[in-house]
Amino acid sequence: MVWQMIDGGVTAPLGYQAAGVTAGLKPSGATDLALIYSEVPAVPAGVFTTSCVRAACVDYNQRIVARQEPVQAILCNAGQANACTGLEGWRNAVECAELTQQELQIASAVLVASTGVIGRQLRMDLLRPAIPQVVRALRRDGSESAARAIITTDLVTKSVALSGEIAGKNVKIGGICKGSGMIHPNMATMLAFVTCDAAVSAPVWQEMLTRANAGSFNQITVDGDTSTNDMLLALANGQSGMPMITELDSAPAQQLQEMLNAVCQAMAKQIARDGEGATCLLEVNVAGTADVASARVMARTIAGSALVKSAVFGRDPNWGRIAAACGRSGVYFDQTKLHIQIGEFVVMTEGTPQPFDRQSASQYLKSELVQVFVRVGEGSGTGTAWGCDLSYDYVRINAEYTT
Amino acid sequence: MVWQMIDGGVTAPLGYQAAGVTAGLKPSGATDLALIYSEVPAVPAGVFTTSCVRAACVDYNQRIVARQEPVQAILCNAGQANACTGLEGWRNAVECAELTQQELQIASAVLVASTGVIGRQLRMDLLRPAIPQVVRALRRDGSESAARAIITTDLVTKSVALSGEIAGKNVKIGGICKGSGMIHPNMATMLAFVTCDAAVSAPVWQEMLTRANAGSFNQITVDGDTSTNDMLLALANGQSGMPMITELDSAPAQQLQEMLNAVCQAMAKQIARDGEGATCLLEVNVAGTADVASARVMARTIAGSALVKSAVFGRDPNWGRIAAACGRSGVYFDQTKLHIQIGEFVVMTEGTPQPFDRQSASQYLKSELVQVFVRVGEGSGTGTAWGCDLSYDYVRINAEYTT
Repeated sequence: MVWQMIDGGVTAPLGYQAAGVTAGLKPSGATDLALIYSEVPAVPAGVFTTSCVRAACVDYNQRIVARQEPVQAILCNAGQANACTGLEGWRNAVECAELTQQELQIASAVLVASTGVIGRQLRMDLLRPAIPQVVRALRRDGSESAARAIITTDLVTKSVALSGEIAGKNVKIGGICKGSGMIHPNMATMLAFVTCDAAVSAPVWQEMLTRANAGSFNQITVDGDTSTNDMLLALANGQSGMPMITELDSAPAQQLQEMLNAVCQAMAKQIARDGEGATCLLEVNVAGTADVASARVMARTIAGSALVKSAVFGRDPNWGRIAAACGRSGVYFDQTKLHIQIGEFVVMTEGTPQPFDRQSASQYLKSELVQVFVRVGEGSGTGTAWGCDLSYDYVRINAEYTT
Repeated sequence: MVWQMIDGGVTAPLGYQAAGVTAGLKPSGATDLALIYSEVPAVPAGVFTTSCVRAACVDYNQRIVARQEPVQAILCNAGQANACTGLEGWRNAVECAELTQQELQIASAVLVASTGVIGRQLRMDLLRPAIPQVVRALRRDGSESAARAIITTDLVTKSVALSGEIAGKNVKIGGICKGSGMIHPNMATMLAFVTCDAAVSAPVWQEMLTRANAGSFNQITVDGDTSTNDMLLALANGQSGMPMITELDSAPAQQLQEMLNAVCQAMAKQIARDGEGATCLLEVNVAGTADVASARVMARTIAGSALVKSAVFGRDPNWGRIAAACGRSGVYFDQTKLHIQIGEFVVMTEGTPQPFDRQSASQYLKSELVQVFVRVGEGSGTGTAWGCDLSYDYVRINAEYTT
């Protein structure tokens, strides 16, 4: 299947509008309230944090998605996470959703998302007047404005859109996201919102999103911390005019899955590259395990190792740390089969260290994209994970945040 | 049971000698070869890294300990880890053990340990002449000299000794260890050696060590990386003259277990406090889980969170990160029961944020020992973990190591 990258983010697919406005939740005065709106009711899907300390919005959305209720909007604020806020936090989440529904004059549900400091109540005094504002600001080219309003410590906005042909119709899928660590319970929760004009049944759409997430957002790591607010939401509104997909193993379903995977992976890589303090994107490819799950775990372990990450920051081709991370990943392998490559530099084969040009390898580690390849045997399992280096700036950003 | 802290480290118990000499393996020229010797054959016990990329010495020792062979010495070098070194590495480990045996003129086994850079062969040209040297240097007060020879990036030597009365006899137990991160596959593997003059059967001694390890070395974390070389070895030589312990649930066994726990915990805390770049010791106490294992996991998750660690370094009483770490630990609890305390500052009770004096709490985080208390319910499980803050110096040390 062929698709192409296009502009437009979440408003690239037909029938979507978006906006971002300033409610006053961020001390900086930057925009902090975003709305994504589908002109017709859409089929929702969602993947949520596995933490048992969860923000009110996570519980709220999960109920709506589980019931497969039609959804027509996603409201997201940055500034307060609305996590650890008890019953008041729950009531505020519900009120935000209902106010948005009223302003939009829709019967379908509104999903809500928050990111920011844990343990502080939403500033409802600021949000109540801002919700009508953000509804009035909705535009068919409003994706970038929404993308800007959801970021926190992120240095750049993150967005992607693809266009492809499925069942004779042009189908578009777009996304915006935020996150500057894999998860930062305080400031930089990972939130990702996908819009799509394909027609797909709710159970199939949910399964597709779960699969796309497994090979993308679940494979990035900045600091190993999982947030109270993490969520990936996806809407499919059918406006492309294609016939409804109802079977996961149909050709149109597979084509849509490929596009969804690509959108999620592109966003995941943007998050890893913008990891707090990061100076490069680290991509780790593992092959030769018994199955995909094992390869993914090992790739994540390597990409998440503080020692590997600091070696990359130091431009130090210190491959022993990669070997050690493989060994402790929990995936068993025969160490005499271990093959490790940093870029084009083979540093170990058959478990034996190889001579290599350290100077050139160190130079390679200055690249914008640093790739590590690991093979641990003859199995067919492969997996990729993305992360970033660990720099002084990661410590600075996270040590000096609230004080 | 009452015991007291005494001086003397691994040579405090009766019948032990130790030494450290310069073989020339460390570029700095500091001492780098240590020997611990029991004047009579001793019962060994050991706990080893769970990594499947393992140094030759790990495999070598594990075989001897599993067979419960009598052991009379532990030889340890710093400089090369002898990991990822294939068959040549294995042969070198065996040769080191055999040379030491010959020089000591003993029939009992010699255990070997290495720490340093992965993937480089032991400098046997330097070790062969140094082994007779270290045997000649053995002294009954040589513990500190041995402790100095095993350290790498450690800023201080680590040692402890206790004296207590068991079954009417004075029993002593001592230890030295090294490690400046929980594990640093490259430079700072965790090694700990315990000596004891109690009389105890091999299976009981092994079980005791496994238990002591679970509540001490397994509960410290500096960076979450597990080494290829980690090991905890313990010898019991019976020289105290006490009757042999053969039952785990006997009173003398329980007394010895308490002393062994205390020795291991003291060493573990010394390692966490000396974590690379650390400016304080972080102690996390969790209570109210269903069992001890759950409490320990949660305590480790909190102590190991990069976000919690950087907040402590920044003296930022950012308790939301602690709540988030609890939530993602994999231990289920009801978040409306969550209680969090930083020192004496109660920041959350019944899942609700509490007002507290941020200024004073920030001041408290400048302490040498920072304690966090978490209660998640009414269960009887409790657990403690130790770690340290994440500072600029951690990044500097690990980014700039080999280049």
